[in-house]
Amino acid sequence: MASTKSNLQIDSTRLWNAIHETAKFGATPKGGVRRLTLGAEDKQVRDWFRDACEAAGCEVSVDALGTMFAVRRGRDMSKLPIAIGSHLDTQPTGGKFDGVLGTLAALEAIRAMNDAGIETEAPICICNWTNEEGSRFAPAMMASAAYAGDYTSEDILSRKDADGVTVASALDTIGYRGAEPVGARKFSAFVELHIEQGPLLEAEEKIIGVVERGQGIIWYNGTISGFASHAGTTPMPLRRDALAAFSEVVLAVETIAKNHGPHAVGTIGEVTIDNSSRNVVAGDLKFSAEFRSPEAATMDKLHAALQAAIADIASRRKVTINLEQIWRKEPTVFDPQIVGTVEGATKQLGYAYRRITSGAGHDACNLASVMPAAMIFVPCKDGVSHNELEDATQADCTAGANVLLHTTLALAGVVSALKTNS
Amino acid sequence: MASTKSNLQIDSTRLWNAIHETAKFGATPKGGVRRLTLGAEDKQVRDWFRDACEAAGCEVSVDALGTMFAVRRGRDMSKLPIAIGSHLDTQPTGGKFDGVLGTLAALEAIRAMNDAGIETEAPICICNWTNEEGSRFAPAMMASAAYAGDYTSEDILSRKDADGVTVASALDTIGYRGAEPVGARKFSAFVELHIEQGPLLEAEEKIIGVVERGQGIIWYNGTISGFASHAGTTPMPLRRDALAAFSEVVLAVETIAKNHGPHAVGTIGEVTIDNSSRNVVAGDLKFSAEFRSPEAATMDKLHAALQAAIADIASRRKVTINLEQIWRKEPTVFDPQIVGTVEGATKQLGYAYRRITSGAGHDACNLASVMPAAMIFVPCKDGVSHNELEDATQADCTAGANVLLHTTLALAGVVSALKTNS
Repeated sequence: MASTKSNLQIDSTRLWNAIHETAKFGATPKGGVRRLTLGAEDKQVRDWFRDACEAAGCEVSVDALGTMFAVRRGRDMSKLPIAIGSHLDTQPTGGKFDGVLGTLAALEAIRAMNDAGIETEAPICICNWTNEEGSRFAPAMMASAAYAGDYTSEDILSRKDADGVTVASALDTIGYRGAEPVGARKFSAFVELHIEQGPLLEAEEKIIGVVERGQGIIWYNGTISGFASHAGTTPMPLRRDALAAFSEVVLAVETIAKNHGPHAVGTIGEVTIDNSSRNVVAGDLKFSAEFRSPEAATMDKLHAALQAAIADIASRRKVTINLEQIWRKEPTVFDPQIVGTVEGATKQLGYAYRRITSGAGHDACNLASVMPAAMIFVPCKDGVSHNELEDATQADCTAGANVLLHTTLALAGVVSALKTNS
Repeated sequence: MASTKSNLQIDSTRLWNAIHETAKFGATPKGGVRRLTLGAEDKQVRDWFRDACEAAGCEVSVDALGTMFAVRRGRDMSKLPIAIGSHLDTQPTGGKFDGVLGTLAALEAIRAMNDAGIETEAPICICNWTNEEGSRFAPAMMASAAYAGDYTSEDILSRKDADGVTVASALDTIGYRGAEPVGARKFSAFVELHIEQGPLLEAEEKIIGVVERGQGIIWYNGTISGFASHAGTTPMPLRRDALAAFSEVVLAVETIAKNHGPHAVGTIGEVTIDNSSRNVVAGDLKFSAEFRSPEAATMDKLHAALQAAIADIASRRKVTINLEQIWRKEPTVFDPQIVGTVEGATKQLGYAYRRITSGAGHDACNLASVMPAAMIFVPCKDGVSHNELEDATQADCTAGANVLLHTTLALAGVVSALKTNS
C-alpha cells in the first residue's frame, strides 16, 4: 500500500465554486439559501449532485427515503465502503454552508483523488442524507435516524408537512423515492465535515475541530401555577407570582449549567403567560427547558440539580411547578480510532486544531450508534448558523476538505497514486 | 339640625336583593356578570336603576357621556349635592360586586333615608359613571376622567370599540346620550363604596377600609436585545441571553418594590420572546412593567432604582435594555376632612377598620382632582375581583352601606328624622 503525500490538497477554487453554484438553488435575497427538503430546489440540487458524482466516476443510487449514495470503486469491492458526506437541504432561512460543505467537500475529495490518480483499497461512498434540518418534516436528521433503526421507513414515509403532504408523496413528486431498503447498505465508517455552528474555534483561532463527542440532550416542558391577582391591590408579600418564580427557574438553569461547565449548557428559550396583562400578577405560564452535556453522568446531575432548585422555588413562592422530561438523548461518543485518524490527518496537514464536542445534532450522531463515526468541524463567522448570515472562509472550508480527504484516504487505504499535486 | 341615631341601619335584605336582581342583567353560567358598558345588558340595568331611583323619589338625568345622576332633594337646594355612587358596567367575565355595590348601596342609603323620614340639608345625588371598566372602550374610568377635565367629550364620543362602534353610537343605540354637558353639574363631595379588590381587609379581619390614598402608577414598555444563538453550540460564558437578563429585571422589580414596602408594588405581567424556540437562546423580547405607590417621592425612588438595576444588568450581560415610561399617574390624596367623616361614621357604627390605600384605580380617584372625595372599602373573598369568582358577604356589604349612609348624612346634614329603625 502506497503512502499518500501530506501535501496532497483538494482544489480550493473548485470546492468554493461548487458551494456557490449550488447556493443558487433556493438563493435568498440576503445571500442565504431556502432549500426545504424534498422541494423543487432540493430536486435541483440533487440533480446537480447526481450529475457531478457521475461525472466524477461514481455510481449513484437512492434509498427508499431519498438518501443518495455515490460510490467510487475501490480495489477490493468486498470491503465495506468508507462513507463521507452530510446533507444538502437547508433551513427556511438558512446559509450556504450548513450540510452543503460536508457533502460538496466529499465530492471534492473524490475529484481530488481522481486528479491524483489515486486508487483506494476500499470503496468510498458520498452520502446526501434526506431531511437533516427537520424544518419541513419532523423529526430532524430523519433519514439517518431511520438508517440507524430509530424509526421504520413506513413511519417516516407517512410523516406530513404543514400542508399535509407526506414524505412519500414529496419523494415521488421530485422522483427521489428509491428502491433500496433503508439501512441495507453497510459502511465501515462515516466521517462528516461540518461548520461548527458555534463560536469556539473562531474564538480560539483554531482551523479544525476534531469532534470527539456529541452532547446528550434533555428536553423539558414545564408549567408554573401561582395565582393571578390585581397588580395594584395585591401586596408584595401576599403574591404568588408565576413569572417571578419562572425568573428564578431561568437563572437556576443558567447557574446549574455554569456549575457543570465548561461543556454543559442549559437554556430556557420559550415562555407563555396565560391571559397575560400588564396589570395582572401572572397566574399560570408554560415554558420549555433543556440541558446538554457530553457526559451522561453530568446529565443526571443537571437533572437532579434542577429538580432540587424547582422544589425550593416552588416551596418558597407557594407556587406549583411541574416539569416533565419529554426527551432524553444520550451523549454521542465518536469512535476513538476514527477520531484519532481525523486528528492524525489534521496534524499531518499542520492545521491549528482542538478536540471539540458538538453541541448541535448531526447525521453523524445518529450513525455513530450503528458504525464507527467521527466529525470534522471548521469555524463559521461569529458562530452563526441557521441564518442567512451564516458564513465561513474559503481557507477554512479548504482546510476541512483537506482533513476529510486525508482521513478518508487513511481509512480506505491507498493502493496507488499516479501523481500528487506538488 | 337634628342628629342622626348611630343605630340607623340600611335594609340589608333589600340591598342584597338589589345586588342579585341586577346580577341577572348579563349573568354568566359561573355566577358572574358580563355587562359591557353601553351594551344591551347595560341598558337593562340602567333602565332598572332609573326606575328604582325614580321610585325612591329622585329626579334622574343623564349627561352627554351617559353618566346617570339621581337627585334626592335637600332642604336647601342652593347647596351643592353630596354625590355618592360608583358604576354598573362590568368586566367581560366580571363579578356581581365591583361597582354594583357602590351604586346600589347609594340607592339603598336613599331608600333607608326615605324609610326613616329623613330630610337632609343639602341634596344627595346618586351617580352611575359610564364605562369605569374600560374593557369595551378605552380609557377605563372614562366618564369620570372627562368630568374631571382630562378628556373632552368630543374625544371620548369618538372612541371606538373592537368592532369599530363609537361611544356616541353606542350611547344612541341604548338611548343614554343625555343633553347635559359633562362636568357642568357640580357637587360638594363624592363618596364611593367599593369592594377592596385586594386581600388586606380579609387578612386582617377588618370590615371597613377607610381609603385615604390612591396609588400613583408608572407604566413602562421595555425591550431587551441580546443575541439569538444555538442552545447546543453556544457556551454559557459567550451567551447574550435576553431571557436570562429579563429574569433579572423581573426579580429586580420585585426586590425594589419590596424595599419600598409596605405600600409600593411592582409587577411585570407580560413578556413575549421574538421567534422563540426551545433550542434557541432568546435574542429579543418585549415586556411591560409597572410600579405603584401612594407617595410621589417613592415613585421617583422606584423609577430611579429600576433605571440603576437595568443599567447594571445590561452592562453585566452585554445586552441592550430599553425601558420607556409610557404613563405616570400621580397618587390620589383623598380629602382629609371627608376621610375623617368616613372614619367617624365607621367608629360610630363600631366596625373594625383600618385606613387603607387603594391599589386599583376608581372613579373617585379621578373626581378627587376636582372635588373633595373619599372611598369606603369592604372585604372581598380572597381579594379576587375582575373574575366571576368575585364574592363578598352580605354582612360586609351591609356594613359598607351603613358607613356610606352615615357618611352621607354627616356631609349633607340632617334636618329632621321621623323615626329610626331601632
